[in-house]
Amino acid sequence: MVNTHPMWNKFPSIQSLLIECLELIIEKTAIENTEIEKTVTDLIVSQGKLLRPAYFLLFSRLGTAAQDAHKKIIAAAASTEVLHLATLIHDDIIDEAKMRRGVETVQSKHGKDVAVYAGDLLISVYFDLLADATDSVEIIKLNTLSMKQVLLGEINQMKNAYNTEITFEDYLKSIKGKTAQLFELSCYEGAYFGGCSPEVIEQSRSIGQNIGIAFQMLDDILDYTQTPESLSKPVLNDIKQGIYTLPLILGVEKDEAFLPLLKKGEHLSDSDLTALLSLLQKNDCIEHAYDIAKKYIDEALASIDALPSHPEKDVLYSLTKSLLKREF
Amino acid sequence: MVNTHPMWNKFPSIQSLLIECLELIIEKTAIENTEIEKTVTDLIVSQGKLLRPAYFLLFSRLGTAAQDAHKKIIAAAASTEVLHLATLIHDDIIDEAKMRRGVETVQSKHGKDVAVYAGDLLISVYFDLLADATDSVEIIKLNTLSMKQVLLGEINQMKNAYNTEITFEDYLKSIKGKTAQLFELSCYEGAYFGGCSPEVIEQSRSIGQNIGIAFQMLDDILDYTQTPESLSKPVLNDIKQGIYTLPLILGVEKDEAFLPLLKKGEHLSDSDLTALLSLLQKNDCIEHAYDIAKKYIDEALASIDALPSHPEKDVLYSLTKSLLKREF
Repeated sequence: MVNTHPMWNKFPSIQSLLIECLELIIEKTAIENTEIEKTVTDLIVSQGKLLRPAYFLLFSRLGTAAQDAHKKIIAAAASTEVLHLATLIHDDIIDEAKMRRGVETVQSKHGKDVAVYAGDLLISVYFDLLADATDSVEIIKLNTLSMKQVLLGEINQMKNAYNTEITFEDYLKSIKGKTAQLFELSCYEGAYFGGCSPEVIEQSRSIGQNIGIAFQMLDDILDYTQTPESLSKPVLNDIKQGIYTLPLILGVEKDEAFLPLLKKGEHLSDSDLTALLSLLQKNDCIEHAYDIAKKYIDEALASIDALPSHPEKDVLYSLTKSLLKREF
Repeated sequence: MVNTHPMWNKFPSIQSLLIECLELIIEKTAIENTEIEKTVTDLIVSQGKLLRPAYFLLFSRLGTAAQDAHKKIIAAAASTEVLHLATLIHDDIIDEAKMRRGVETVQSKHGKDVAVYAGDLLISVYFDLLADATDSVEIIKLNTLSMKQVLLGEINQMKNAYNTEITFEDYLKSIKGKTAQLFELSCYEGAYFGGCSPEVIEQSRSIGQNIGIAFQMLDDILDYTQTPESLSKPVLNDIKQGIYTLPLILGVEKDEAFLPLLKKGEHLSDSDLTALLSLLQKNDCIEHAYDIAKKYIDEALASIDALPSHPEKDVLYSLTKSLLKREF
């Protein structure tokens, strides 16, 4: 029996659908190899937030799809999480990340061999689920292009590593690809598979994109604010790895004291990091970044509010609003 | 202007179609990132043998597909090479291989970051090409399952690394997945997209599988026979990496002198390798392995011979026969 992240306890109707998605993913990734199978299952049951399939399902419930579409809706919703998991595993190879969601990463625990194949396996399952969900090659096509956009976002971020001249536009382009693309796809496909009106289907895209952009900004802010138990201050992992995100980009624009520190690239000392933290605080960079993320959430909320009246709309609204409070 | 491997000079009609495939792959993998784009293009123009799209195209020409199917046939044929390239790049991350086709591997030249994303990008292009080639979600489904089988073959091989008890059946299972599956798919899809009769479509599968099995066996034999310019004897890379292929498996079955050496696993010395080479020669393992590969080729040739009469059948026959002479 799988469980979801406890955040879904207050949305039982969505929670039971999410559990169906997880069970389907586990069934589809079952292979003879115990190590890889267990690796993937561990990741699935590690209680990710399942936001992508959740947005898919919420949008699908705004529509009028026939009851017999249920299995296809679950398969397509599951596919969004599977692509997300595949990119997580492959990104961890690149970041050489040790931990993810509080559990050791696949590549740290099992080596990059298992991580490469587990990610590839998930990509094959992603298209397998889509082929179960639809008779439309257009939907497959849309997914191949979305997957490409996600990769281009990642590649773009990699290209900008340690680039002290990175702009807000560069950053926005990366996160639109690596994160917002899949939120946009999830909302759009939910509306499409759920049989929503053309107007709702059209709106779903920009709502998804705004949510995805804000989600990534808020996630990036966490790296500046979250304090590991063993330390009294954030570890600024992204900065150490040359991934310069919103708070820092805003700081560099505002205060020229950042640049000499950043120019040290990979060779930042602990005292350099402390100095960067002080500069970020002095310039209210975190607050400013949060305000920008909030604008995207507010835009999404306004569009959700304008959708035709529907009981499930409230869940969509309150879930989206709650992203601003995320501390996970 | 791209070129093919010189082996295609004697088959100009197929060569021109293969060039169309390569040009399409280059077009589809064009992205803004110069490094990754160049990486993929380098690999494409490094004159691989293009056997998978070639078998696709040869089978397609046995059929009666309308002229307007041309673009779809090129796209589907190209997709087989793209999946092959994606698995090559990801396999090289795992093997930490330095060279491939006489050029430095992606991961050795650009690091595993670029290799992971370049492989993923190719997987997205693989499905993109398929979505251009067909309106049938069944074909997409078939490809997701084939891709999964390829991965399971690779995973199986990884699981058997340094396993001194590996059997012929274990080996056959791995190569059926990692290599024969894609040959089978290429022949089958060629026959399908080319509008062949149901009998030819049915035959194409087993022909492709036999060719693929033999191809991998012959490829594995090369590791025991090919001598790098700088050395006077083969380097037995596979054995060093714990990948025990046909000649060695046959030796271990026949002569118990192999086992004490193999038990050294990763710690084989140069003199151990020399001793293994002597044992392989003494037991005629290479010859025996070659005979087994030849049986699979002969079976494929007999089935090709039994196909309905067609001018292109001779090319199919002679290409398949020529695999036995491969020294590339």
